[in-house]
Amino acid sequence: MSDALAGEPSQFDADTAIRREAGVWAATVTDRWNIGSAPNGGYLLALVTRALLADTDQPLSLSVTAHYLSPPQPGPATIRTEVLKAGRRLSVATGGLWQGEREQLRVLGTFGDPDRFEGPSRVGATPPRLPPPESCSPAWLISIPTQNEIRHRFDFRLPPDFEWGRPEPGQPLAVAGWIRFADGRQPDPLALVALADAFPPAAMGMGELRWAPTLELTVHVRNRPAPGWVAGRFSSRFLRRGLLEEDGELWDSTGQLVAHSRQLALLVT
Amino acid sequence: MSDALAGEPSQFDADTAIRREAGVWAATVTDRWNIGSAPNGGYLLALVTRALLADTDQPLSLSVTAHYLSPPQPGPATIRTEVLKAGRRLSVATGGLWQGEREQLRVLGTFGDPDRFEGPSRVGATPPRLPPPESCSPAWLISIPTQNEIRHRFDFRLPPDFEWGRPEPGQPLAVAGWIRFADGRQPDPLALVALADAFPPAAMGMGELRWAPTLELTVHVRNRPAPGWVAGRFSSRFLRRGLLEEDGELWDSTGQLVAHSRQLALLVT
Repeated sequence: MSDALAGEPSQFDADTAIRREAGVWAATVTDRWNIGSAPNGGYLLALVTRALLADTDQPLSLSVTAHYLSPPQPGPATIRTEVLKAGRRLSVATGGLWQGEREQLRVLGTFGDPDRFEGPSRVGATPPRLPPPESCSPAWLISIPTQNEIRHRFDFRLPPDFEWGRPEPGQPLAVAGWIRFADGRQPDPLALVALADAFPPAAMGMGELRWAPTLELTVHVRNRPAPGWVAGRFSSRFLRRGLLEEDGELWDSTGQLVAHSRQLALLVT
Repeated sequence: MSDALAGEPSQFDADTAIRREAGVWAATVTDRWNIGSAPNGGYLLALVTRALLADTDQPLSLSVTAHYLSPPQPGPATIRTEVLKAGRRLSVATGGLWQGEREQLRVLGTFGDPDRFEGPSRVGATPPRLPPPESCSPAWLISIPTQNEIRHRFDFRLPPDFEWGRPEPGQPLAVAGWIRFADGRQPDPLALVALADAFPPAAMGMGELRWAPTLELTVHVRNRPAPGWVAGRFSSRFLRRGLLEEDGELWDSTGQLVAHSRQLALLVT
């Protein structure tokens, strides 16, 4: 709980640190964000996004998409990037994470500052209705029988009356709860990219879920988050032959929508 | 109405035709899918997707994302592609559409055949409730005061009692209706990529909408569509300073979900 408070880099910042070396970005993939033997997809996307934000000199990823090629191993990695468009309001860039001659994920994104735009605003949804975090129960991927280092990285809370299960036919599989970094690091736009893939899968209600590896993850960051807990709502509507989408929303502690996400994943039962 | 019936290529197939030339794909961008002076983003994504499907030898785009850099002009274009992963069940590839030295959009996608997967299925949503197409009204982007060649490419129908407007606070802007190609071409997985961006924006209800250029578009094709009309449901929940997301679902004539989409767009009023 003390890293961020003591002025040391947080676990998230330490594990997404990048440095420029010979025209590429050097990074170190750690196993601290693993689910089983594979690093979490949101952690990996945040790592590459950090490099793309640096290259475009933009504050925020308006939209980033990762396609996952093969799981990285803990250790050194290289991020090779290319800026496709460098604008004042909007930049577009792509980058891949490599270990040796093998590319593990490719990312494509648009970067900018939504506060530099002018136009109408309207919120056509409401934040999840949750008891305050203090009244919620610490919970984690209790039904997934595998080693999950990632469970130590986040403080994740579910309402005390929540039960994983299958809703009525025609209704989505869904979960909503609170999340924050376990070491006290506050949310920021980059953290939202990781938080969008940090909840247990909404499809846990299908039972006997062993793993839900992400094939593709897209995160849209819409606003800078206020400090404090982040409320997340995740749902899956279309499960077909083990492939499913999961939609996420992240709301900050002031009740403001700060990011939404969608992923295509494979449900391994 | 006769191209497809007479054995000629349909307008969609003619305008997304590609041929291999000197290690790249050659294509011709037409203005037949224009909204104002810019080609529709779904048409452009379908054009690049066709090249990536050919390169990966896969039948279907499980997930494709386009980021738009600058609007192409009618005329010759080159599609430069790279296969990042070539698998039996899944392939990942990226490609850019270029005119001269200028790249207009970059696409990243995962390709495969969902029917080769095995696992549970579950539908947590219902198709839009619509009167049959014959009872719906032909409609188009009537409120957008610009030349829209694209209106001649699709037959688009709205329920007779539908009115563009702002729903209650906290509810999404939404539209649902029927769509098919005007020349009778039947839907297939590639067509779904274009159909996912062919509806008028759900944000038309905001009024005084001039244009809604797409910054990023992601389409997930989940199944092969049956012949006939396609029902679409599109909604926008989060409009902030003119930036908004739009979520789409496409259901085939048998009531089966065949694709879903999300885009980040800029609302120009």
